[in-house]
Amino acid sequence: MTTEQLVEQIKLKNSFLCVGLDVDLNKIPPHLLKEEDPIFAFNKAIIDATHDLCVAYKPNIAFFEAYGLKGWQALEKTISYINENYPEIFTIADAKRGDIGNTSTMYAKAFFEDLAFDSVTIAPYMGKDSVEPFLAFNDKHTILLALTSNQGAFDFQTKLIEGKELYKHVLETSKTYQNSENLMYVVGATKAEYLAEIRTIVPDSFLLVPGVGAQGGNLQEVCKYGMNDQVGLLINSSRGIIYASQGEDFAEAAAKEAKVLQEQMKALL
Amino acid sequence: MTTEQLVEQIKLKNSFLCVGLDVDLNKIPPHLLKEEDPIFAFNKAIIDATHDLCVAYKPNIAFFEAYGLKGWQALEKTISYINENYPEIFTIADAKRGDIGNTSTMYAKAFFEDLAFDSVTIAPYMGKDSVEPFLAFNDKHTILLALTSNQGAFDFQTKLIEGKELYKHVLETSKTYQNSENLMYVVGATKAEYLAEIRTIVPDSFLLVPGVGAQGGNLQEVCKYGMNDQVGLLINSSRGIIYASQGEDFAEAAAKEAKVLQEQMKALL
Repeated sequence: MTTEQLVEQIKLKNSFLCVGLDVDLNKIPPHLLKEEDPIFAFNKAIIDATHDLCVAYKPNIAFFEAYGLKGWQALEKTISYINENYPEIFTIADAKRGDIGNTSTMYAKAFFEDLAFDSVTIAPYMGKDSVEPFLAFNDKHTILLALTSNQGAFDFQTKLIEGKELYKHVLETSKTYQNSENLMYVVGATKAEYLAEIRTIVPDSFLLVPGVGAQGGNLQEVCKYGMNDQVGLLINSSRGIIYASQGEDFAEAAAKEAKVLQEQMKALL
Repeated sequence: MTTEQLVEQIKLKNSFLCVGLDVDLNKIPPHLLKEEDPIFAFNKAIIDATHDLCVAYKPNIAFFEAYGLKGWQALEKTISYINENYPEIFTIADAKRGDIGNTSTMYAKAFFEDLAFDSVTIAPYMGKDSVEPFLAFNDKHTILLALTSNQGAFDFQTKLIEGKELYKHVLETSKTYQNSENLMYVVGATKAEYLAEIRTIVPDSFLLVPGVGAQGGNLQEVCKYGMNDQVGLLINSSRGIIYASQGEDFAEAAAKEAKVLQEQMKALL
């Protein structure tokens, strides 16, 4: 999917919501556990109920890998279901991969070709030759970790290098990579005030913002500092939406929560 | 496996060799492609031929994920084969994961419990709460990226923070994490002269050193600067060993290459 198509969908749906699929068998409605593939059954119901309220889904790959072969199978079924039934949806493999050249190419093939995701999240620690293999794919997007929303972000990301925080060096340096127009960035919403400075470095890029809801970010603040003239934001919510209810009504409850966020987004657009 | 058991194996085998399993279907002997599971058939033959010359195997997870479900199945079979037939071998999931708390716990479960690896490689960018969930597992080892052997390492890892390179901050900060005794570190062999400084920060930790062979590192140099009184080194070689021949004799050719490295190691111990 191109960035233009994503922006078009945002305007059409009045939403820049991304729904995170962090599917934990201990948290899904117990009645689903008797299904042959509970993870996929849960995802399918959530997707059917929320697809008109959001523009993106973000399966968290760890939650599938933790269930081994069955988890990987559920991931394949989930991404195929989205691509076949809702091809207008932007898909994000939240994988946070990062390795050298030929290994990065293998990961890129896994997520962009085999699974046919539109994008994948990538860690920047190994630098240029760990990121460029992902950028080489046309109309695919590499979402680089810049400033994350967890406490550990202060261990290294905010440390000063020549008077400037490491995450700003990540933003600046990544702009010099080949095919850098395929970059987006992860920026945690718990630090909305940082968004203004981030926008001076990457005014045009899309930012994937986790941490609204469960992690405590504020939607209005994020939009105030982070929105650009193409919107430029994907706001992720995972647990607040998908675990809104543990009953038979879980999908409707998820849609209701998604609708609340979508209405807020509509007002902010 | 405990660190003591690993050291014991190193002394017993006169080897601190780790064989990297980066299995690419385009590079394995063509006659194996008619097998039902060519990746596993290749790994099994390599493992049977080299297990007495090395102390560790390091499947590169990207190369399995790139083949989807079949790849994941081959990974499960490979790690089970090692654990059942050669339980004295130290196993490394070269996954370079790194995510926040509950997601890290899911990855830790995937690699330590579901697949039963002894260790996993982890990227440090997200800090403390992305690493500690892995450290919480007893007798499992978290191998943190410090200084990698690729060109992109110079993008961020060697940048100065308060007069000291980022990778040194990673080493120092990680020592303050809970259960830090379960840490090992990835240090690229192309920068052997850095090892002396690294040893002043982490004198007792095991270092996983890729880059001897294909990536150009020198074994003697690495030992000179990196060895400690418990050896403290795992030297990885992947392509130089596993792709030594593309013929029917590929496993014997791999053993021959492994033997060359093991003999060099024996002389250095």
